[in-house]
Amino acid sequence: MTVIKWNVRAGAYYDSVVLMQLQRGLLGLPGVVDAGAVMATPANRDLLAANNLLPESITANPDDLLIVIKANDDASAEAAIGQVDDLLTKRKSSNSPNSLEFRPRSLSAAVKQLPEANWVLVSVPGRYAAGVAREALDLGKHVFLYSDNVLLEDEIALKKIAREKGLLVMGPDCGTALINGIGLGFANRVRRGSIGVVGASGTGTQAVTAQIHNLGAGISHAIGTGGRDLKSDVGAITAHQALDVLARDDETRVIVLISKPPSPEVATQLISAAQTTGKPVVIYFIGYPPPARKIGNLKFAISLSEAAELSIREVENSRILQSSNSRFVRGLFSGGTLAYETMIGLQAFLSPLFSNSPITHSQNLEDPLHSKFHTIIDLGDEFFMVGRLHPMIDNDLRIRRMKQEAADAEVGMILFDVVLGEGSHVNPAGELAPVIKEIRGKRIGESKSRGGRVAPNDFGGAYRDHNLDGDLEFVAMVIGTDDDPQNLQLQVSQLEEAGVTVFRTAAEAVEYISLRFSASKQNDFTPVNLEQLKQPLAAINVGLESFYDSLLSQGAQAVHVEWRPPAGGNEKLAALLQKMRK
Amino acid sequence: MTVIKWNVRAGAYYDSVVLMQLQRGLLGLPGVVDAGAVMATPANRDLLAANNLLPESITANPDDLLIVIKANDDASAEAAIGQVDDLLTKRKSSNSPNSLEFRPRSLSAAVKQLPEANWVLVSVPGRYAAGVAREALDLGKHVFLYSDNVLLEDEIALKKIAREKGLLVMGPDCGTALINGIGLGFANRVRRGSIGVVGASGTGTQAVTAQIHNLGAGISHAIGTGGRDLKSDVGAITAHQALDVLARDDETRVIVLISKPPSPEVATQLISAAQTTGKPVVIYFIGYPPPARKIGNLKFAISLSEAAELSIREVENSRILQSSNSRFVRGLFSGGTLAYETMIGLQAFLSPLFSNSPITHSQNLEDPLHSKFHTIIDLGDEFFMVGRLHPMIDNDLRIRRMKQEAADAEVGMILFDVVLGEGSHVNPAGELAPVIKEIRGKRIGESKSRGGRVAPNDFGGAYRDHNLDGDLEFVAMVIGTDDDPQNLQLQVSQLEEAGVTVFRTAAEAVEYISLRFSASKQNDFTPVNLEQLKQPLAAINVGLESFYDSLLSQGAQAVHVEWRPPAGGNEKLAALLQKMRK
Repeated sequence: MTVIKWNVRAGAYYDSVVLMQLQRGLLGLPGVVDAGAVMATPANRDLLAANNLLPESITANPDDLLIVIKANDDASAEAAIGQVDDLLTKRKSSNSPNSLEFRPRSLSAAVKQLPEANWVLVSVPGRYAAGVAREALDLGKHVFLYSDNVLLEDEIALKKIAREKGLLVMGPDCGTALINGIGLGFANRVRRGSIGVVGASGTGTQAVTAQIHNLGAGISHAIGTGGRDLKSDVGAITAHQALDVLARDDETRVIVLISKPPSPEVATQLISAAQTTGKPVVIYFIGYPPPARKIGNLKFAISLSEAAELSIREVENSRILQSSNSRFVRGLFSGGTLAYETMIGLQAFLSPLFSNSPITHSQNLEDPLHSKFHTIIDLGDEFFMVGRLHPMIDNDLRIRRMKQEAADAEVGMILFDVVLGEGSHVNPAGELAPVIKEIRGKRIGESKSRGGRVAPNDFGGAYRDHNLDGDLEFVAMVIGTDDDPQNLQLQVSQLEEAGVTVFRTAAEAVEYISLRFSASKQNDFTPVNLEQLKQPLAAINVGLESFYDSLLSQGAQAVHVEWRPPAGGNEKLAALLQKMRK
Repeated sequence: MTVIKWNVRAGAYYDSVVLMQLQRGLLGLPGVVDAGAVMATPANRDLLAANNLLPESITANPDDLLIVIKANDDASAEAAIGQVDDLLTKRKSSNSPNSLEFRPRSLSAAVKQLPEANWVLVSVPGRYAAGVAREALDLGKHVFLYSDNVLLEDEIALKKIAREKGLLVMGPDCGTALINGIGLGFANRVRRGSIGVVGASGTGTQAVTAQIHNLGAGISHAIGTGGRDLKSDVGAITAHQALDVLARDDETRVIVLISKPPSPEVATQLISAAQTTGKPVVIYFIGYPPPARKIGNLKFAISLSEAAELSIREVENSRILQSSNSRFVRGLFSGGTLAYETMIGLQAFLSPLFSNSPITHSQNLEDPLHSKFHTIIDLGDEFFMVGRLHPMIDNDLRIRRMKQEAADAEVGMILFDVVLGEGSHVNPAGELAPVIKEIRGKRIGESKSRGGRVAPNDFGGAYRDHNLDGDLEFVAMVIGTDDDPQNLQLQVSQLEEAGVTVFRTAAEAVEYISLRFSASKQNDFTPVNLEQLKQPLAAINVGLESFYDSLLSQGAQAVHVEWRPPAGGNEKLAALLQKMRK
């Protein structure tokens, strides 16, 4: 038979290392069977209950420290409770050889002690973290924000300030970073090399950087963003800054971008930004169907280990040139799956994208008869099919829709499929090609009468007749075999003669379109100073002392702040002090 | 200035080929600028309006035929309207050399004419299609159901009947199939070969089969299912039948399975079924994040063209042996992304799966402190982190949870990660391994005292000490480098000595687990007669005559039914006739 005793200490701050040591100290006492020492939050109370350490009669507030002892007898339990003060006041022994040196008690004092420090590591409890991070930004320092339980609005505010100043806020809840060979927070020891990482996922970044090392290559910098950076509210501020600075870093030859699934708009923007880096970028959006294996300079991975492998293979890849096109794509498909697969590819870089066969709800085209922005129409959808032959047999609907789309001056490309084989129209290209010729003739005429300029493209000034300003480009994917009754070669040649760019798979067509519609680079932020990343790392640590120890063991210069929360963690007193200062 | 005239014909059935020919006939008349001939459904009215062919004053019911003429003058428009009857009664000229032969007017008459026909192609309008399909099933025939706009409840009813009888219902809205070298509906001409296809997507199947041909290989059979087959309401009845019959077909050495994203339960069941085929199966769930590149005998593609390429590469692959395990997996992770990536893999073959960091809403574990079924816990989630050190630093929470999970006899495997590097615990395996040893000792003891048998596994009767009945298997993924401060080799060896199976990436761990937890084969349906697939194809066609022509041109035996809807398409009269028959 065991007994349980407990002790509640009203609202005060305790470091989580201190709590762990208190619990371990209590467990080591004679007669003690189990012990808990936690802040009495609902989650922690549930955890105690799960370990049979929470008698119903305990009342405590979330800010209170709750100590529970399960012992063999009353005397042992009482004795353990009696030890709590001693255990709490006993300074934990530091592993640091520098523990006897002077330690500043504020960030500003630490900066005076180590003015070359460009980085501040913050791992204090969440409710204090935003304040410390803001102070660091005010002092002109980059912030590695390990703390979790930071409010989303604080994250947004901090990142906006940082973006203005050309500073990085890595986090909150950022587990890892590697800057110039030094690991911040949790970080595997990896050799330096030419692969840069932008990671919205801490262990994801660790797994990838560790494997890059294990496969013989190395890391230039790995910049963490925190898991919420890619949510639409935050808009991937840090990820955009990180992509930009790694794009400018000559030591970084390949970039890996890792994140849990971002919101579709954020994904499109990030992919655009990745395209404009001019470097191979390996993207792994965990749980997001990859739009393709490869789109221009982008490669899409489907696992952490594959991201590592691909990045190493890409190190030798060269710079990719791109042209751009700001008008809209309209896809008119007879094959539902071809339409769908094409959308999966296009949604990575065209936004907003709509369809009568949408992937996500936000892509739903309410009126299938009228396109808007980029649109993919499945003309074989049931909506179009009552009393009507399938568009693989009857081209009438598609021809009418082609003319309708072509009448919209905002449309820059019409994309369509031609599915050959048994059962299909005997000569689809024979019906479509003349219409396309007619449309293109009309468009070019209109463009000339408006005095439309004929623009050289980005491929060294060469002209391509279907890339002209004002012109409308036609792209087709032809699905068929040499044995099909329609004569595959004849179908392709009729389309090509009408000026259509022809592909044989959806994947190839998608890659082509990505190059025609890639975004041009437009930064709306102050660039991060690349030179600061290249300097020997010097940092100030506020919070977990183990992070400070690890900086020193890696040979970095560092100062640890003996941080205590305002008013000793007493929230009421802190609020009063704050008021008095104003 | 043009004029518009129109004509409405009350509720009667018109073949969509007839309507297309009527429209084309009208467009060819003198003075006619544009014309429409459609059933007056809302969708078709909108289409007319989009082509400026719908004056506001027209009233017509969805069952009515609406004919609209836009002409240069009144006289031309009137003349065109006057031609409608002639154009409608003019029999379309058949391309078929057999057009003069006797044609049955009912399915049963057709069966008498061609008793060897095992297949019925149905492409009549949706509202009549279920009736024809049911008649075909009653006659013991497989159904290729091209028609769309068939009710979901009719699909389910038809497929349940078919499953009882060992017959296939391919469709509704099934565009393509290849049976024994003959294309049904829309089909590319491809050579015969050793790759079988199960396709819930028509153009997807066409694109894959065409590319397999273009790459030099060939198709045994391609079985369509219709796009809704993989919805949870239908439960992939046809896809399961198709996988089963292709598994039994010796000519089929590799199977390709293509579908739009299925519901998670259906996906898990289909993947299980694919595992038990004992053949390499290439799966492409369009828009579904692939769980891995490879899981046992399964390969996952991310595009149609990749599905084709992978299937050809797999032709040489051999049969795979599997063991099975019916208990639950519990994952206890310190790394959120490792947990997430593991879930993406596991959800393909473990169901139901829960997590405090779920991928889909249905996987949400309400109480993170108590697992159920298969569960993956992210112990670094904010919920666990108030006033507590991260599980990469402090193993206490994980050790307690391991013991909790081990106390559940339903748990067959505990999976966890160990993330090494700067900032992490100095010797995590040193704390975890003794606990694991203790747990395993206790479990084996309990099993022996219950008289638990020691079962040989499927690998030739060899015993593996951590696969014993009643035993609890531990699997770890260790993330780290040779240079990490914890000594990677020491961490791995401590775990292995405690009986833990150790992997270095999540992908490898997932593949291992898939083999340990693969389902055993249990068919709950009458198998489809494989010999019927291997006979020279003979079919009865009800609906689009072009499908009949295409069967003949491929050398198949076929009979075309001169089908007309009951009571000439007059629904009231049809209902009356139906009543009188009862």
